[in-house]
Amino acid sequence: MSSMLLKRTHMCGTLNSENIDETVVLNGWVQKRRDLGGLIFVDLRDRSGILQIVFDKDISLEAFEKAETIGSEYVVATRGKVRKRQSINPNLPTGEIEVFAEELQILNVSETPPIYIKDDDDVSEGLRLKYRYLDLRKPSMQSNLVFRSKVSNIVRNFLMEEGFIEVETPMLTKTTPEGARDYLVPSRVNPGKFFALPQSPQLFKQLLMVSGMEKYFQIVKCFRDEDLRADRQPEFTQIDCEMSFVDIDDIMKVNERLLQRIFKDALNIEMKLPIKKISYKEAMERYGSDKPDIRFGFELVDVSGIVKNSSFKVFSSTVENKGFVKAINIEGYEDAFSRKDITSLEEVAKTYGAKGLAWMKITKDGITSPIAKFFDEEELKNLLEITNGKTGDLLLFVADKLDVVTNALGHLRLEIAKRLKLLNPNEYSLLWVTEFPLLEYDEEDNRYVAKHHPFTAPVDEDIALLDTAPEKVRAKAYDIVLNGHEIGGGSIRIFSSQLQQKMFQVLGFSEEEAWEKFGFLLEAFQYGTPPHGGIAYGLDRLVMLLTQEENIRQVIAFPKTQNATCPLTNAPSLADYKQLKELNIAVIEES
Amino acid sequence: MSSMLLKRTHMCGTLNSENIDETVVLNGWVQKRRDLGGLIFVDLRDRSGILQIVFDKDISLEAFEKAETIGSEYVVATRGKVRKRQSINPNLPTGEIEVFAEELQILNVSETPPIYIKDDDDVSEGLRLKYRYLDLRKPSMQSNLVFRSKVSNIVRNFLMEEGFIEVETPMLTKTTPEGARDYLVPSRVNPGKFFALPQSPQLFKQLLMVSGMEKYFQIVKCFRDEDLRADRQPEFTQIDCEMSFVDIDDIMKVNERLLQRIFKDALNIEMKLPIKKISYKEAMERYGSDKPDIRFGFELVDVSGIVKNSSFKVFSSTVENKGFVKAINIEGYEDAFSRKDITSLEEVAKTYGAKGLAWMKITKDGITSPIAKFFDEEELKNLLEITNGKTGDLLLFVADKLDVVTNALGHLRLEIAKRLKLLNPNEYSLLWVTEFPLLEYDEEDNRYVAKHHPFTAPVDEDIALLDTAPEKVRAKAYDIVLNGHEIGGGSIRIFSSQLQQKMFQVLGFSEEEAWEKFGFLLEAFQYGTPPHGGIAYGLDRLVMLLTQEENIRQVIAFPKTQNATCPLTNAPSLADYKQLKELNIAVIEES
Repeated sequence: MSSMLLKRTHMCGTLNSENIDETVVLNGWVQKRRDLGGLIFVDLRDRSGILQIVFDKDISLEAFEKAETIGSEYVVATRGKVRKRQSINPNLPTGEIEVFAEELQILNVSETPPIYIKDDDDVSEGLRLKYRYLDLRKPSMQSNLVFRSKVSNIVRNFLMEEGFIEVETPMLTKTTPEGARDYLVPSRVNPGKFFALPQSPQLFKQLLMVSGMEKYFQIVKCFRDEDLRADRQPEFTQIDCEMSFVDIDDIMKVNERLLQRIFKDALNIEMKLPIKKISYKEAMERYGSDKPDIRFGFELVDVSGIVKNSSFKVFSSTVENKGFVKAINIEGYEDAFSRKDITSLEEVAKTYGAKGLAWMKITKDGITSPIAKFFDEEELKNLLEITNGKTGDLLLFVADKLDVVTNALGHLRLEIAKRLKLLNPNEYSLLWVTEFPLLEYDEEDNRYVAKHHPFTAPVDEDIALLDTAPEKVRAKAYDIVLNGHEIGGGSIRIFSSQLQQKMFQVLGFSEEEAWEKFGFLLEAFQYGTPPHGGIAYGLDRLVMLLTQEENIRQVIAFPKTQNATCPLTNAPSLADYKQLKELNIAVIEES
Repeated sequence: MSSMLLKRTHMCGTLNSENIDETVVLNGWVQKRRDLGGLIFVDLRDRSGILQIVFDKDISLEAFEKAETIGSEYVVATRGKVRKRQSINPNLPTGEIEVFAEELQILNVSETPPIYIKDDDDVSEGLRLKYRYLDLRKPSMQSNLVFRSKVSNIVRNFLMEEGFIEVETPMLTKTTPEGARDYLVPSRVNPGKFFALPQSPQLFKQLLMVSGMEKYFQIVKCFRDEDLRADRQPEFTQIDCEMSFVDIDDIMKVNERLLQRIFKDALNIEMKLPIKKISYKEAMERYGSDKPDIRFGFELVDVSGIVKNSSFKVFSSTVENKGFVKAINIEGYEDAFSRKDITSLEEVAKTYGAKGLAWMKITKDGITSPIAKFFDEEELKNLLEITNGKTGDLLLFVADKLDVVTNALGHLRLEIAKRLKLLNPNEYSLLWVTEFPLLEYDEEDNRYVAKHHPFTAPVDEDIALLDTAPEKVRAKAYDIVLNGHEIGGGSIRIFSSQLQQKMFQVLGFSEEEAWEKFGFLLEAFQYGTPPHGGIAYGLDRLVMLLTQEENIRQVIAFPKTQNATCPLTNAPSLADYKQLKELNIAVIEES
């Protein structure tokens, strides 16, 4: 490009009838060209929007003749005068005006693009990712990326105001025992050794607390080599925070104000504080989920005590065998579900392990249900009372082991809310879930593993249980949930070397193993470690929810496919023999 | 930690005589404990500073007895009343006050730390990095990291104000042909294939321009697997920008205002704009460097024409053989360099390839020089005239091939300025260096390689030279230099598919090779690529210079050693056989 470029004076989308009679220069892409009545109309697009340019022989023959050669996605610069538009286009913000071109520069040509540059084209995601640079020209993708950038900036400025310091932690770090699968990076200088890409800056942020930084944050890439789902990527971005001399309340308070700021500045939504809190135990009991969507009811009700002596053997024998019977009341939607619909709901319940789904409709004419006959009047009365069953309601029952009942009904209430279109995307409902279990038993490994990570502190009064009933120990851990999605989580950390060693012991590590894997942390803890805790948010997921997208790839500029590849660059790719030799590694064939 | 924690009401360093009689709670670390006259004095440290706490039996026996047990780096919380200090300590900002403790909580104990928590301890860097969490407690390291965080925030907010969007580009990407050595990441899902960690987001930011983002930035980790120097790390942080519809001036202007903002907001220094510009050619001729430090003179002067017929064979035969003789005039410092000093300067010149260093002192009594006798009066007169030689000056000469002369004198002027302490660290001198050569000839590979990278645009009027004299083609490339250090660089990019293919051809790639390596870029360029260009700054180096540190490890929380290892975590480390097997790779022994 020479210095002759006609440089823009305005962005297309910012012009309106107030600019009439001004001479402007615009730079952008040809969205569309139409030749009509001896004139050429071009929709010119830049990041701000679209504006109509008119080429008229009588104004500039040279510009007109150039305009005759241009097509979709040509890059042009044009100078002209803003005029009131003959036929106003109410669908365009700039629809009241057009620019009559006096000069046109064709900056670059374009082949016919393989995908349309519009939001509603129905093209495969594979093609979208291969031509991502075209896909990103779409207004929705542009606005998603602009929004994401804005959210990051809001977060950073809020945390800086609050005295947090952004510290960059290493990307080339040590493999994480007790975590997910690591991405490894062979070291050339240290043959046979490997760095790992961080799954999170967990240990480094704790070390920063040991080092007296007091308030740390970072917006940082993290990596997990796990099989992908719709909302997972091999690399993802975390808003990572840690604070010293705090307890759970302090962390919650600053994070509630952070979330309030995000909603206000990014979406102009006033979020009322404090955010509701619910314990893990209560969340599981009432919603069948540790990340409940509380925009709607349909809560789980334990009816085991009422049905345990009924003649419905499925229920009574379940209770007899230490199982549970729970119900959800789909209040007011009795007539929204046909028998066929209920059968399809039963299929859903079965995918979550339930053996079946019992139901009762409470109609004007009484209870309609294949199982009503098994209950006496007293039992039916008690069932309606405990479930708050009224005329017009639908009761659904699952009987099984507790975790199956919980899981099946938890998913069922979500599925039903979706079918009933009760999930208002413009309603943002936040919830803290607290007091998670510290440990869970891993049947495969035959030992306890940390539910969050091994650095999470137990609730003080439960510490004694570490020896007697580890599964009962509650953690000082909390998740923040938005409309049924976990958007962040954290904990108060162990900050005593002794308690940390105890924790490793409960996880089945010998003292030697613990020191081998986490020696630097245990050692650091001996030199004056303050009480500390923190939180991490998944930025991709947060932005996905705030933009009401269904897939995190919609808010990532260059995502990977489900297969962890990039169709645009064809990464990953084969390496040269020379490269591998320098790294002292070889590829081995799959057996 | 229980909820019983005495939570701080103030930070130590923020208290002063205005707080006298207030009851405060402080949290922090014991910097020092002294027992004196029946009282215990504790210097308490937090991120903000240090404050003296006094324990007096008569105020609280319990607190006093606890205080008797605490030592350096214990973590404590204390409540007490602010009083005017008996013996004022003028070296402490809080030196006029002290706090008489009414309550003390010992939050954590500490072993005796292996390094002192003070700036002037003289401990090896190995030990500092092993105990980095203690090293980072030092005031200088804390303030460096706070400063770095501040600079990042200033940059981000400036660029957001200017309409730039921060877009995150992938870390798991494709290996870079024509770059430095990549770090590779084996793919588990795609056996035998590898990701590469990005050396820079160069191609992605160009693709973002193709996608119409128009103004992009990112503060991002980049990776190069090269042997390390004092100011190199395997991973480093780049401030990365790209803009569309711009020429060099547009990029310079916005970056000058960015730099002005950084100096103003981070250092309260008013930087005058515009920043001086110098072409690469002129920089090499006048300063012998493409990143000249212009805080001082001692410019190179070509004296070849004057000495070519002299009887000093070293000079005349050099010129005869197409070599050059250049001089620098160390104005006013004739008497600052003894013969022994000059011999040591000659040693410096020799390390840069010079065969020797000739000199002339212009004293009150005339010219003192071992070589003066070889020049006639006319030649001496002309030498003094062209070098502006006056009484009190020292002239230094190197005769050799041009690049040796340039390199040796370029380094010599720097070395001399250092010895003369002319480099005022509080003077920040910025300079644009422009019109770099597009290509340089790689003798080893026997072909041209790109001096910056293969996407840099040639100066328009030099394009024809690509066929006839590639080495003469100037690039639309620029570096920004601060006090002799390159802190950033960039270019206008090629945006035409044809010119890009031409460039690859000049670099010796067949069309097939070019498409294999850069096909996605060449393809993208066919769909309406705007003119674009950008810049990238090395954040680590910039912060190092602004904090007047000599080593980038001073501004990185957890750096690697020269050997690319982390003494704290012992990364890199051996991988499990199971991990490697999943990745389909094996370690091969060095032969």
